[in-house]
Amino acid sequence: IHSSHMSDNPSFVLRGVEDVVYEQRPIPEVSGDEVLVAVKKTGICGSDVHYLFEGRIGDFVVENPMVLGHESSGIVAKVGPKVKNVKVGDRVAMEPGATCRVCDSCKSGRYELCPDIVFAATPPYDGTLGRYYRLPADLAYPLPENVSLEDGAMMEPLAVGVHSVSNLGGLKAAQSIAIFGCGPVGLLCMAVAKALGASRIIAVDIVPARLEFAKKYAATETYLPLKPEEGESRPDYSRRNAANMKSVLGIEDRGKKSIDLVIDASGAEVSIQTAFYVVKSGGTFVQVGMGNPNVTLNLGLLMTKELNYKGSFRYGPGDYPLAISLVANGKIDLKPLVTHRFKFNDAITAFNATRKGKSEDGKGVIKVIINGPDADDE
Amino acid sequence: IHSSHMSDNPSFVLRGVEDVVYEQRPIPEVSGDEVLVAVKKTGICGSDVHYLFEGRIGDFVVENPMVLGHESSGIVAKVGPKVKNVKVGDRVAMEPGATCRVCDSCKSGRYELCPDIVFAATPPYDGTLGRYYRLPADLAYPLPENVSLEDGAMMEPLAVGVHSVSNLGGLKAAQSIAIFGCGPVGLLCMAVAKALGASRIIAVDIVPARLEFAKKYAATETYLPLKPEEGESRPDYSRRNAANMKSVLGIEDRGKKSIDLVIDASGAEVSIQTAFYVVKSGGTFVQVGMGNPNVTLNLGLLMTKELNYKGSFRYGPGDYPLAISLVANGKIDLKPLVTHRFKFNDAITAFNATRKGKSEDGKGVIKVIINGPDADDE
Amino acid sequence: IHSSHMSDNPSFVLRGVEDVVYEQRPIPEVSGDEVLVAVKKTGICGSDVHYLFEGRIGDFVVENPMVLGHESSGIVAKVGPKVKNVKVGDRVAMEPGATCRVCDSCKSGRYELCPDIVFAATPPYDGTLGRYYRLPADLAYPLPENVSLEDGAMMEPLAVGVHSVSNLGGLKAAQSIAIFGCGPVGLLCMAVAKALGASRIIAVDIVPARLEFAKKYAATETYLPLKPEEGESRPDYSRRNAANMKSVLGIEDRGKKSIDLVIDASGAEVSIQTAFYVVKSGGTFVQVGMGNPNVTLNLGLLMTKELNYKGSFRYGPGDYPLAISLVANGKIDLKPLVTHRFKFNDAITAFNATRKGKSEDGKGVIKVIINGPDADDE
Amino acid sequence: IHSSHMSDNPSFVLRGVEDVVYEQRPIPEVSGDEVLVAVKKTGICGSDVHYLFEGRIGDFVVENPMVLGHESSGIVAKVGPKVKNVKVGDRVAMEPGATCRVCDSCKSGRYELCPDIVFAATPPYDGTLGRYYRLPADLAYPLPENVSLEDGAMMEPLAVGVHSVSNLGGLKAAQSIAIFGCGPVGLLCMAVAKALGASRIIAVDIVPARLEFAKKYAATETYLPLKPEEGESRPDYSRRNAANMKSVLGIEDRGKKSIDLVIDASGAEVSIQTAFYVVKSGGTFVQVGMGNPNVTLNLGLLMTKELNYKGSFRYGPGDYPLAISLVANGKIDLKPLVTHRFKFNDAITAFNATRKGKSEDGKGVIKVIINGPDADDE
Ligand SMILES: NC(=O)c1ccc[n+]([C@@H]2O[C@H](COP(=O)([O-])OP(=O)(O)OC[C@H]3O[C@@H](n4cnc5c(N)ncnc54)[C@H](O)[C@@H]3O)[C@@H](O)[C@H]2O)c1
Ligand SMILES: NC(=O)c1ccc[n+]([C@@H]2O[C@H](COP(=O)([O-])OP(=O)(O)OC[C@H]3O[C@@H](n4cnc5c(N)ncnc54)[C@H](O)[C@@H]3O)[C@@H](O)[C@H]2O)c1
Ligand SMILES: NC(=O)c1ccc[n+]([C@@H]2O[C@H](COP(=O)([O-])OP(=O)(O)OC[C@H]3O[C@@H](n4cnc5c(N)ncnc54)[C@H](O)[C@@H]3O)[C@@H](O)[C@H]2O)c1
Ligand SMILES: NC(=O)c1ccc[n+]([C@@H]2O[C@H](COP(=O)([O-])OP(=O)(O)OC[C@H]3O[C@@H](n4cnc5c(N)ncnc54)[C@H](O)[C@@H]3O)[C@@H](O)[C@H]2O)c1
Ligand SMILES: [Zn+2]
Ligand SMILES: [Zn+2]
Ligand SMILES: [Zn+2]
Ligand SMILES: [Zn+2]
Repeated sequence: IHSSHMSDNPSFVLRGVEDVVYEQRPIPEVSGDEVLVAVKKTGICGSDVHYLFEGRIGDFVVENPMVLGHESSGIVAKVGPKVKNVKVGDRVAMEPGATCRVCDSCKSGRYELCPDIVFAATPPYDGTLGRYYRLPADLAYPLPENVSLEDGAMMEPLAVGVHSVSNLGGLKAAQSIAIFGCGPVGLLCMAVAKALGASRIIAVDIVPARLEFAKKYAATETYLPLKPEEGESRPDYSRRNAANMKSVLGIEDRGKKSIDLVIDASGAEVSIQTAFYVVKSGGTFVQVGMGNPNVTLNLGLLMTKELNYKGSFRYGPGDYPLAISLVANGKIDLKPLVTHRFKFNDAITAFNATRKGKSEDGKGVIKVIINGPDADDE
Repeated sequence: IHSSHMSDNPSFVLRGVEDVVYEQRPIPEVSGDEVLVAVKKTGICGSDVHYLFEGRIGDFVVENPMVLGHESSGIVAKVGPKVKNVKVGDRVAMEPGATCRVCDSCKSGRYELCPDIVFAATPPYDGTLGRYYRLPADLAYPLPENVSLEDGAMMEPLAVGVHSVSNLGGLKAAQSIAIFGCGPVGLLCMAVAKALGASRIIAVDIVPARLEFAKKYAATETYLPLKPEEGESRPDYSRRNAANMKSVLGIEDRGKKSIDLVIDASGAEVSIQTAFYVVKSGGTFVQVGMGNPNVTLNLGLLMTKELNYKGSFRYGPGDYPLAISLVANGKIDLKPLVTHRFKFNDAITAFNATRKGKSEDGKGVIKVIINGPDADDE
Repeated sequence: IHSSHMSDNPSFVLRGVEDVVYEQRPIPEVSGDEVLVAVKKTGICGSDVHYLFEGRIGDFVVENPMVLGHESSGIVAKVGPKVKNVKVGDRVAMEPGATCRVCDSCKSGRYELCPDIVFAATPPYDGTLGRYYRLPADLAYPLPENVSLEDGAMMEPLAVGVHSVSNLGGLKAAQSIAIFGCGPVGLLCMAVAKALGASRIIAVDIVPARLEFAKKYAATETYLPLKPEEGESRPDYSRRNAANMKSVLGIEDRGKKSIDLVIDASGAEVSIQTAFYVVKSGGTFVQVGMGNPNVTLNLGLLMTKELNYKGSFRYGPGDYPLAISLVANGKIDLKPLVTHRFKFNDAITAFNATRKGKSEDGKGVIKVIINGPDADDE
Repeated sequence: IHSSHMSDNPSFVLRGVEDVVYEQRPIPEVSGDEVLVAVKKTGICGSDVHYLFEGRIGDFVVENPMVLGHESSGIVAKVGPKVKNVKVGDRVAMEPGATCRVCDSCKSGRYELCPDIVFAATPPYDGTLGRYYRLPADLAYPLPENVSLEDGAMMEPLAVGVHSVSNLGGLKAAQSIAIFGCGPVGLLCMAVAKALGASRIIAVDIVPARLEFAKKYAATETYLPLKPEEGESRPDYSRRNAANMKSVLGIEDRGKKSIDLVIDASGAEVSIQTAFYVVKSGGTFVQVGMGNPNVTLNLGLLMTKELNYKGSFRYGPGDYPLAISLVANGKIDLKPLVTHRFKFNDAITAFNATRKGKSEDGKGVIKVIINGPDADDE
């Protein structure tokens, strides 16, 4: 770290729909148990793109200029007087949601539900795409030597996978899982399932290239959904598609050939409908993907199978630590997912590539990483 | 029991839509660990009415003549050579689903999901509306002295309430619950909630008389849903209705004024939609009511609140015993729910009253009981 | 509150074994989300007595002067600028353990295990027996109107009962429980069991008067242990005692007559040994009582019954709120437990009465309450 | 199978202490859902040896001649008319405990606690060391092609490991475990821990050769306990030993260096005492080893760490299937554990080797397998 850098804090700021600028922001002061991190690597996720191109996600509306970015890692640049777990110079993954610590959710072990969470790049709170970001010290997780800063940035989406598959889904070794959607989140759910010892990991996507990637990366089987027929209602299509999927892959409702856990990481209504048929009697379905909020579901299946249908939101206690351990222990390899890297000053190009799903050279995007302003120093 | 009765077995048989007759059926032989029960009291439930007037419920179609009835109690008339838990003359509640005991569901403590369950009056299996019914001895639960045979018949729907509220819902003392639908199932869910020590029991129904009944019986508060406006979509209506309900009753998303558990016992789409707004962040929603299988839900709420949405199907291990204890300990009073009683030979009148929701004298029906052929002997 | 009082803070300070004085202590400053409470009622517990007469409990040694007392309630006298949940003048129960909020235990919903807990009157931290006590605002729980300040002080031992019986023990309505030891902690465990709807609450104590009290208060049955025979080993005695208890009370290892949950609130080795025989196969045993740390147990029972033997330490998330609700809802009556009340200046007499188990007039002590210096103003 | 074999059933029968003979026993008839298995491979376990050399284990006393053996696999020789899951000729692992299926334990998913279990070679029930053994069809688990009959016999002790580590211990990927005792049971617990993705597997034994074996097989670290000093009490020794173990291995009470789960598979009092210090605050301790039933424990640790101390008895629903999957998926290799193989007619030599821990050639025993009378045919 050049000490000169401590005097300026260039940041990538969203001012309105498709209106971004680089601005100097004050360098945050740290006090008590806070740390200041020099941001080195930031992944771009669908929500960042949403804010940039639509200015809102559901009820969250960008009303004031906001720094973008929330999947980051960096190097500790300053620590408050009470900080014990990290020191200046440590490489850390940054958990981007600072919670109140006193509400019922925070105290009872579900801080992801804290109503007062300050989440990076969720309006009105600034994100991490600047030179510095301040956060409570316990949210800066030191990276083991064999874990890179890029891996560190990827801990954010990986924590989503850990939360969904391990924590809420409770997947155990030798169980079967089906994952709908092979974007970064679906792929990381597969990686977690593999690390936990799943015997069968079925990847589903409508894009064949994504299925191929999934197969190479972590899936044991893939499924390409049928095409809908003209005039066919979604529930009818989904029943037909599920029947096909079950017959092609030999999936049953009970016993060894049944699917213990289903994850939807697509947000697509037909995926969710199909998944209700695919999951076993007495099984669990974790909803991670966010699409159209209003989705038509077959409650007959929910009831006669006594399904457990759970919403998954970000990550909670233990999810970041488990994500880091799984990578450090070699059970998950994050490297294949980073398909593109950009300089801090090329952030807009990075966002465009993520939006289009491919870079100008035609290469498909899984995850784009933007370097921090000083990342080239490392 | 007159020994003469052992030679005949008059039964109330459904032959087709709206086509029922009394027929003599062979008296079942008992062997091993089976018992023969002389049926004394049988409650009528919505599903019995459905089969009678529509010949089917979903995929269950009445294709051959089938004896109706499954909410029954009686007196043990014969026991197989291995039976130890009951003896001839014992008054018993009859759990109407005999399971295979060897499948994964049976062995892992969720026998309600057994694919080979023989459930009374679910095609193709005969029900209990005859003089005799045979079942495995462990499904004949002796009734304590202070529990009547009528109470015994009511254990069946009460077990549905126990399964939903205690077992799946996990309700604990001093928690809050909202129950949509004040038919027998909803009312029994309220009774269970009261017995478990719920601090707040909110009853919801579109029929004011049912709300009044609920309030007298077990609810602490009631809510009459708003009327839908013309042209208003169901999701829009439900959001408006939920906002009204929350403001009128002072319901919040978190903390002391929040609702820990929601039960839908109406099957109505707008109830279910409303309930997603009413349940607290991190809360549980148990679906008991069966209506239109395709229901449009707001998954945004499922996810940002990390709801746990569970289907409930019949009852499983421990539910009958808990139902009986709660009644025996005086924590639940089933008597107010039995509004009508009919002789065995008036079974059709009993079904008609249940279907119309009132008897010919205009009295509202909650639960109708049909006596066994010999019940007048008791 | 007389504003004059804000200038002094008389406190009851332990300087060494059997060496206590009243001293003026500085009035704590409040900042951020802290509150200052004017202490009005403080219960005395065995641990306070231990520190006074022995200067230590296990590894906790009083090395510097320490204010005693930790079971307190009071009136909010000052609030920090960020406090929202209470305001000056509110009557509150005071949870006496302030935790770090950032360690794994705190974040995962088990803050009772926080290694950095600042617990009132556990060395080296000062307790509540002064005019004022400062604590984080979320640990000051407003008391509903129908809950008195004395009840408020009793929330501390009641929270121990809630933690043990409801949280760790998982007791459900209509289950059976046996509680060894009928001191305040055992009695409060019984009160919780009753509030949760236990069908059978068996109280065990070697002091007949305590059994009588328990029976009047919350137990459904009592058991007076056999006398040990000369030369009999403790394990032998306990087996004999357990056999007698089971036969006298009709306790079985399985089924309706079995004991789902056992609590030891005596700390006595023979109680714990007896309890291993009494709890049902597959049951739970929660250890609350602290006696001789080295206790000889029959692990054959632990294994063949697959017992779940759990240590209970203080209370965690949700325990204080549940304790307050159960009292506010009328499910628990704390008044009968307060047998003695003393002025602030008579604290030593109060400690002596607690130690001896009776006051000078011979009346048996259950719980002694010491008023705050200004309690007579209320 | 030679059809001639169907006419005789030579069996290895224990008549009294150290008194065994080969006897012809009638070939069991199969009816209903039973199968007859031609036994091919049988492992010898400590309990078999106990019965042979002492005639009893605790309250289980051999009073009548009893066939020994319970860790077996074989080939289905006959099936009852209702059997669907296997057919004649199938290779199967045999779960040796047939339960009643109607008691509360059986119905609620804990059949290992069934009071009416018929367990092979537990008096008064005959074991598997004969040509044929009859059992309910659902307890005959077909072996996948890549799983050998020897593996099939090893499923019994492996199921003990699965039950303890996965089911009761709830071990998850990336957690840490310490296992006391490196006999077959301890080693199989380690194998399960490895299969579930444990990051740290600490093996403890007083026999260095067993530690070496453990390290090669599945442990990540080993610990050789200190020698007790003269006159040192066991609790004192254990505290000293634990302190040494924690310092040598860098074990802490909380955080990344803490031990989430401890298994005792030694039955030794000092192991159990040591383990109470080693397990983390808030951790779980599963007791598998059976030694002297009376063991002195430090309950201060149980309480201040809020430990969960669980007895483990045999195996329950899902344990055999998970054991088989883990082997079939290549996550567990059972072959290294089989150190000795004997012919059916050399059963006594096999028992002697197991008892002495080594064969006559001095080779250390882990697991001895006795072939069925016809195993050489395979
Ligand atoms: N719950 C949370 O906390 C959380 C956190 C991050 C992301 N998310 C959500 O997770 C989802 C996945 O995120 P991502 O970054 O991987 O997005 P993505 O857009 O890269 O991936 C979605 C994938 O779903 C596939 N898909 C679309 N329709 C499908 C269908 N009918 N069947 C099967 N697959 C289909 C797409 O082809 C794509 O590969 C998004 O909805 C996102 O909003 C949720
Ligand atoms: N899950 C199971 O195992 C199980 C078992 C038995 C019954 N059931 C189902 O439970 C439901 C209730 O059974 P029941 O016998 O009490 O039926 P019921 O018809 O007597 O009661 C349903 C109640 O819901 C009310 N209702 C209708 N629309 C409503 C709305 N929009 N808002 C609020 N209330 C509304 C009705 O007025 C009625 O009082 C049925 O759907 C039944 O099929 C399920
Ligand atoms: N786990 C915790 O967080 C926690 C908190 C508070 C108190 N405690 C412990 O709980 C225990 C009870 O506290 P208390 O304030 O009620 O104490 P207490 O001394 O008033 O009560 C103990 C009771 O146990 C009875 N007893 C003694 N030997 C017995 C025996 N052999 N069989 C049956 N009963 C016997 C005594 O007669 C007495 O009534 C104490 O050991 C205390 O240290 C634990
Ligand atoms: N719970 C159950 O259902 C179940 C089932 C099978 C076996 N068991 C029990 O599990 C235990 C292990 O069985 P096994 O077949 O592996 O027996 P084993 O005798 O082969 O192994 C025990 C190991 O513990 C070691 N040991 C002895 N004292 C020790 C100490 N102080 N510290 C560390 N290690 C020590 C021994 O050296 C030996 O290697 C036995 O007690 C057995 O009875 C229980
Ligand atoms: Zn919070
Ligand atoms: Zn079954
Ligand atoms: Zn802490
Ligand atoms: Zn059984």
